[in-house]
Amino acid sequence: MNKPLLISMGDACGIGPEIIAQAFARDGAADCRVIGDVAVMRRALRQLGLHLPVARLEAVNEAPPPGCVPVWQPEGLPPGLAELSMGQINGACGAAAAVCITEAVQQILAGNGAALVTAPIHKEALHAAGVPFPGHTEMLQALAAQGGALPPVRMMLANAELRTVLVSIHVSLRRAIELVTFDRVLETLRIAHRTAAAWGQVAPRIAVAGLNPHAGEGGLFGDEELTVIAPAIAAACAEGINASGPYAPDTVFMRARNAPGHPGEFDLVVAMTHDHGLIPVKYLGVEQGVNVTLGLPLVRTSPDHGTAFDIAGKGRADPSSLVAAIEMARALIASS
Amino acid sequence: MNKPLLISMGDACGIGPEIIAQAFARDGAADCRVIGDVAVMRRALRQLGLHLPVARLEAVNEAPPPGCVPVWQPEGLPPGLAELSMGQINGACGAAAAVCITEAVQQILAGNGAALVTAPIHKEALHAAGVPFPGHTEMLQALAAQGGALPPVRMMLANAELRTVLVSIHVSLRRAIELVTFDRVLETLRIAHRTAAAWGQVAPRIAVAGLNPHAGEGGLFGDEELTVIAPAIAAACAEGINASGPYAPDTVFMRARNAPGHPGEFDLVVAMTHDHGLIPVKYLGVEQGVNVTLGLPLVRTSPDHGTAFDIAGKGRADPSSLVAAIEMARALIASS
Repeated sequence: MNKPLLISMGDACGIGPEIIAQAFARDGAADCRVIGDVAVMRRALRQLGLHLPVARLEAVNEAPPPGCVPVWQPEGLPPGLAELSMGQINGACGAAAAVCITEAVQQILAGNGAALVTAPIHKEALHAAGVPFPGHTEMLQALAAQGGALPPVRMMLANAELRTVLVSIHVSLRRAIELVTFDRVLETLRIAHRTAAAWGQVAPRIAVAGLNPHAGEGGLFGDEELTVIAPAIAAACAEGINASGPYAPDTVFMRARNAPGHPGEFDLVVAMTHDHGLIPVKYLGVEQGVNVTLGLPLVRTSPDHGTAFDIAGKGRADPSSLVAAIEMARALIASS
Repeated sequence: MNKPLLISMGDACGIGPEIIAQAFARDGAADCRVIGDVAVMRRALRQLGLHLPVARLEAVNEAPPPGCVPVWQPEGLPPGLAELSMGQINGACGAAAAVCITEAVQQILAGNGAALVTAPIHKEALHAAGVPFPGHTEMLQALAAQGGALPPVRMMLANAELRTVLVSIHVSLRRAIELVTFDRVLETLRIAHRTAAAWGQVAPRIAVAGLNPHAGEGGLFGDEELTVIAPAIAAACAEGINASGPYAPDTVFMRARNAPGHPGEFDLVVAMTHDHGLIPVKYLGVEQGVNVTLGLPLVRTSPDHGTAFDIAGKGRADPSSLVAAIEMARALIASS
């Protein structure tokens, strides 16, 4: 039997449990297992009026009966999660989310799972639980390090048309400019290349977007392209990476777009800032976007939205992005 | 008779003349007159193998015979333009382009033309001619000022789905951050509102994109949203402008996108940087984008591309963006 794909439940009082339930109802998801709380998953199915049974597994890689939502509940979840009000910040939910992620990673690193898909967690709920990480990425970095040095990771946002990898993410635009350094751009190119190579692309065509309008127009509108980005591209090329640029940010994403009748010129685009990279991926609809963490020793994808407390438990959450994240994880496993 | 729409020829050795010729061949363009060099337009038609005759007009608002390309040639064009090699920087072309733009604006301000559509010019050709302006916008500002104070102008890029107005354009990203000031953001909102109101929208819904990721996430990733942008929006609202935000840059353009089955939440988006605003407009294809200068006492549109010297005279230039610019100018005239 193939190893299963593990889906961490996310915040028990957010939309995570209900979009997971809908993904099973819609997709079948026979290759997936939920790492979460059995009672929380039962509540989500009840809220949605879905009549799928929950099967409690003894081990994540146990074969479940067909037509059910298979849940492996790790030790140490706080009691009474399914009694908490939906859409509220709760330390117990933060603690439970952290346990599920930790156990899922350990199962994958132990060879019992093929990939991790994470449902959304809430930063403040984690904080209330005393979890020392602001989000998934930092937690996964620490788990993957296993006490050693943190592996450098980068965020990729992808949909069916476009893949962008970001040099920096959750910092101010001023700080993002400071983070455009030779080392950081080169490291981003190496991570993007290694990942794409692991997916079976021999020489992925990586376009590098500039930082400034028109990629600086030869130094007229900023010199980071000349002093930092072009040298980093040259260094990457010297290592055998098929990188080119820097290109004008306003047209490189259009050039990379891969759609019917419009073959993309590049396989992925490295963007210098969060919004240069995310604006084009999200433009055609946020429900199609999938977040992938590059640089970890495991495949990890997630939907590109949060816990949506305002609509949690109301049956209005759209599972499309989670379904896309599951499909992306399958594709990454298949090609790695 | 309605006033004609004036198309300035642009650089004689770029793709301007041939895309104008194609626009007449494709669109009819019976309401349009070329302000340019007769021999250059004849060469463009010959290069394309088009058998449309050129009609030389005595006055821009003279009715031309049907089925021709009507050209009004201003006094003072350098001789021999049609003998110059295509795709080369030439001071004579820069001088001719400047004469055509100047004369076109004067004709419009004198009541003889309805709007200006500008074909592309070349910055270095202008410079070689000693023209003291780096591009159209600065030249049009000076012509509109008629010796007085320069009117504040802003660039809008628009396609069928999305309109974005930029707080700054051709400066480095570092400098663009410095230009995010209360006065400049408020002025941008006023110009955008006045223009949209002149087009017949009573209370255009203006979305304001933030500068930082997640619009700063409450000050965690930069404070320009709190200290500058939100106060400017509040001041605009106090003047009766229907502005809202600041919104996260990565999702506001998707929310404003107006497409079949996806009604936009906003009529236009004010973007803090060149690339935040241009990436989404160009993502679906640069050939659809139209550049509009807001704040001038005349309607001015242009295609969103340059002189493309590499393909000039080869019949490979795509006239779509010029045709879209003509259509946009017609729409702006009709609703003003």
